[in-house]
Amino acid sequence: MSSTATYQQIVLASRPQGRVSPGNFRLERVPVPALQDGQVLVRNHYLSLDPYMRMRMEDVKSYAAPQELNAVMVGGTVGEIIESKNSRYKPGDFVAGGFGWSEMGVSDGAGLRRLDPARIPLSAYLGAVGMPGMTAWYGLTQVIGPKAGETVVVSAASGAVGSVVGQLAKLRGCRVVGIAGGREKCAYVVNELGFDACVDYKAGHLLEDLRAAAPDGVDGLFENVGGEGLDACLGLMNPFGRIALCGLIAAYDGEPTVLKNVRMLLTMRLSLRGFIISEHMEFWPQGLAELGDLVAAGKLKYRESIAQGLRSAPEALIGLLRGRNFGKQLVKLVD
Amino acid sequence: MSSTATYQQIVLASRPQGRVSPGNFRLERVPVPALQDGQVLVRNHYLSLDPYMRMRMEDVKSYAAPQELNAVMVGGTVGEIIESKNSRYKPGDFVAGGFGWSEMGVSDGAGLRRLDPARIPLSAYLGAVGMPGMTAWYGLTQVIGPKAGETVVVSAASGAVGSVVGQLAKLRGCRVVGIAGGREKCAYVVNELGFDACVDYKAGHLLEDLRAAAPDGVDGLFENVGGEGLDACLGLMNPFGRIALCGLIAAYDGEPTVLKNVRMLLTMRLSLRGFIISEHMEFWPQGLAELGDLVAAGKLKYRESIAQGLRSAPEALIGLLRGRNFGKQLVKLVD
Repeated sequence: MSSTATYQQIVLASRPQGRVSPGNFRLERVPVPALQDGQVLVRNHYLSLDPYMRMRMEDVKSYAAPQELNAVMVGGTVGEIIESKNSRYKPGDFVAGGFGWSEMGVSDGAGLRRLDPARIPLSAYLGAVGMPGMTAWYGLTQVIGPKAGETVVVSAASGAVGSVVGQLAKLRGCRVVGIAGGREKCAYVVNELGFDACVDYKAGHLLEDLRAAAPDGVDGLFENVGGEGLDACLGLMNPFGRIALCGLIAAYDGEPTVLKNVRMLLTMRLSLRGFIISEHMEFWPQGLAELGDLVAAGKLKYRESIAQGLRSAPEALIGLLRGRNFGKQLVKLVD
Repeated sequence: MSSTATYQQIVLASRPQGRVSPGNFRLERVPVPALQDGQVLVRNHYLSLDPYMRMRMEDVKSYAAPQELNAVMVGGTVGEIIESKNSRYKPGDFVAGGFGWSEMGVSDGAGLRRLDPARIPLSAYLGAVGMPGMTAWYGLTQVIGPKAGETVVVSAASGAVGSVVGQLAKLRGCRVVGIAGGREKCAYVVNELGFDACVDYKAGHLLEDLRAAAPDGVDGLFENVGGEGLDACLGLMNPFGRIALCGLIAAYDGEPTVLKNVRMLLTMRLSLRGFIISEHMEFWPQGLAELGDLVAAGKLKYRESIAQGLRSAPEALIGLLRGRNFGKQLVKLVD
């Protein structure tokens, strides 16, 4: 690799005031660094775009330090090793890493996960067999703990996390109700993913539709969105219901979620827990084994929205925050 | 006991529309029934008034069936057996029972708890060594699980539940901050009960005062009240904080609690659990043993507001819902 070779990356140029705009980002071209002993150079094939990125763009007290200004935007990636001075990896190996919004990355091997694209499509390691899949697996099995016959509601049901939550809950014998935006997504959730029902929050009668879709009430809620949907579900919870709070995407880029059905938390003796999957790494081997087997066997379906080229990432993230994606949002970084 | 003897009881005459009023209750005089084999007749000495009664007066979906109209108002009592056809009890024995707003009660012995007024004052069995004490014990030890050095916030801190929560948390090495209404209650909470600080929510700068009283943030919140205090505490929670949701008294008789700091539940990975102490009877022997020992040894302090005579119960309950009581609210039923 010549020292004059370059690649592109995107940094955070400014923090959003209100909604994210393309001007919050800046595309840069930087030289490919020379490798030190023990290092590998990775050409990233796919970048994962995820709602948590919105929260990291702000300078507020949260579970992670805010994204630094003028630093490469955070993000999960999968790619191919194209140069190696590390005895454990050779060119042609595929790995998952956290190289951010960048066409290339350098690593000493720490935090890399070796992939098997002959068994599972490379991009799935950023979705159903990656962080979103593990988020679904952990929240469902460790926070909700569903029993056969119970009703589980999942918001953002056609998305990378929600689609896995619902399919795993169906495999565990639950009645599964999704919430999604628009008839097309709802049809996909029921017809392709096999949910029992899906409520279109854009149709304008969310509470009535939810009540009809969950006639026995709600035992488990996997919440990705917040906003009115969360409040409506709260009002339908059964005694001893469990709520896995995974995201509040409705509030990341707009109005904060306000809860009115607070009384249900007491009267129904509900449990609610917020969680961040990166703090529960001890569950990843078990969860990824189940998820990988299901994807390899064709029993866990997923859908992807793929933007082409790093330059498209800002608009793709903005679309994700508006619910314009359909399934896991990725950016393809190679032709 | 002559069959023409009578006693008084109070029934629910109508459900409150908005705030509770004296007209929602009706005092009745009824004949003392003749005992069947196995039964005892109890003269109640004290009736306990508790916030949960407000919720039971409404006909809404909740953890318990609503209080029936024209039936004796629910409530815990302590009293003396004055007649017995049950071999396990004799006149002069003291028992706790759930005879409601009534001067007397008949029982076959099921649900009675034998008391030892020589060791512990009779009225304390309705407070620190009764249901409120157990509510405090369970929520603190089983929901919050405080560690020495952590900060625990308790609302309604001078009340029957809150006062026990704070003293138990102090015994476990926590920094304890109370919230109470008015300077007199706050002074009592700090000077008599030994809390580290107490914030007066009526002073008009709750959030600032809470922040000053909990400079290291809040690890455990025992919530009895709801309303602005809950939202303010949410904003100060530390990562992995635990919230025991025990009551929403602010909303029982007025405006529902609205939560705005919902995002903290996610970003701080908080756990929140609503609970009802009567569903955790398996913990009562352990909890009452600790509470009884502490009260008998003078290490657990409490304060009582005692209304005189059954007729005073409606106004006393209304006062409790407005925070006019100071400590455990009781009604004394004997001269």
